[in-house]
Amino acid sequence: MRLRNKKWARPWLVEHADLVIDQEHAVALQGKWQTIFAAEQPIHVEIGTGKGQFIIGMAKKYPSINFIGMEIQDSAVAVAARKAFDDETDLPNLKFIYGDGAGVETYFTTGEVSKIYLNFSDPWPKTRHENRRLTYKSFLSGYQAVLPKGGELEFKTDNRGLFEYSLYSFAQYGVTFMPDGLSLNLHQDSEKMLDNVETEYEQKFSEQGFPIYKFTGSFD
Amino acid sequence: MRLRNKKWARPWLVEHADLVIDQEHAVALQGKWQTIFAAEQPIHVEIGTGKGQFIIGMAKKYPSINFIGMEIQDSAVAVAARKAFDDETDLPNLKFIYGDGAGVETYFTTGEVSKIYLNFSDPWPKTRHENRRLTYKSFLSGYQAVLPKGGELEFKTDNRGLFEYSLYSFAQYGVTFMPDGLSLNLHQDSEKMLDNVETEYEQKFSEQGFPIYKFTGSFD
Ligand SMILES: C[S@@+](CC[C@H](N)C(=O)[O-])C[C@H]1O[C@@H](n2cnc3c(N)ncnc32)[C@H](O)[C@@H]1O
Ligand SMILES: C[S@@+](CC[C@H](N)C(=O)[O-])C[C@H]1O[C@@H](n2cnc3c(N)ncnc32)[C@H](O)[C@@H]1O
Repeated sequence: MRLRNKKWARPWLVEHADLVIDQEHAVALQGKWQTIFAAEQPIHVEIGTGKGQFIIGMAKKYPSINFIGMEIQDSAVAVAARKAFDDETDLPNLKFIYGDGAGVETYFTTGEVSKIYLNFSDPWPKTRHENRRLTYKSFLSGYQAVLPKGGELEFKTDNRGLFEYSLYSFAQYGVTFMPDGLSLNLHQDSEKMLDNVETEYEQKFSEQGFPIYKFTGSFD
Repeated sequence: MRLRNKKWARPWLVEHADLVIDQEHAVALQGKWQTIFAAEQPIHVEIGTGKGQFIIGMAKKYPSINFIGMEIQDSAVAVAARKAFDDETDLPNLKFIYGDGAGVETYFTTGEVSKIYLNFSDPWPKTRHENRRLTYKSFLSGYQAVLPKGGELEFKTDNRGLFEYSLYSFAQYGVTFMPDGLSLNLHQDSEKMLDNVETEYEQKFSEQGFPIYKFTGSFD
């Protein structure tokens, strides 16, 4: 998804460099992320955070976890961060990275991140674009590099082709299923919905009646 | 699924003991199944064959494979076998076993079966019935015991809960995905539908608009 370009985005990001860390600073923070949060607590990262509905919702719901939303589009990350900034609730446990998920292992050290979320990642349906999918093996290897042994990966999407591909990719790479770690129609799984936080895309597609797929697995 | 009891079933099965092998004779045929077919060729087995639409369709479509439909209910296997018997086409490559899939490794030797099909298996949704599901680990171990290394397992169902469970069970047991071995909406996958043979249940549920799930994997 490409957002319309927003003229205010770049200057806003520069002004709020403490909330939205750019790639250069993210690399400099490797191993030191706890220093920029109010409290030392587990760090969860969403890659491709879009307009931020999920990561903001999570930061509100789980104050004892530090969240980072990573996003490659300046307009999107600016919309997300401004939404968090303008929110009534103070969110000392939320930061953003304006950067590429492909560089994740240059931003974090092993074990610095406890959990990674991918939500409604761009599907890149053409086979020749396989290596752009956020569940391609090179990305999985990046996630593994920053997670501890047993670190979790959570993935939601409405895109059947991407989900089929991803389950295959997870199996090939050795990302193992959590017990009960699969839903092929999340919004009909009342138990799994109890602690579900919706993303923008999820809200849109589930309202249209499309099934939402979810996988939770862990890296050995 | 339980079929209404059919009075004619038992006597019919006794009369057609060459077409429908009972458990005792199946055990006696272990290692010798090729002798009861017209031609020596790979053997594929469906467990829980129901009224036989799939296995008869397969036998017609692939004359150079020997098919066996295994079914635990006398009424169902009698309906299936009579349908095959009455068919215009002579089907020298089709037999039935009136028996329990749980005994599969007592009917066949290792490598005697090249491929196993499970179609719309009873879901047994209650956790305390987990060990009755045809994708429970004790069944997987039976399938592995009769397949060669790399032998295939194909599984179709409309039942989301059973499919979610089964993907987990396959992963736990080490049944590995075939590339492209997953469809979460088979009837919308035009490519995968090209060589699809429908089962009774599949026809019913896909007509009602339910997604049909399919997994193809292999045992190491
Ligand atoms: C389809 S949107 C989904 C947004 C949001 N997660 C949701 O569920 O509503 C995918 C987002 O991922 C971002 N993205 C794609 N590739 C990325 C990458 N390599 N690193 C970081 N973000 C990426 C896109 O810019 C886009 O904002
Ligand atoms: C829901 S029906 C599906 C029939 C058919 N495969 C279809 O797709 O239309 C499941 C069938 O599996 C049979 N079955 C259940 N457990 C079995 C077992 N352990 N061994 C052999 N057959 C079994 C049942 O008797 C029933 O006929």
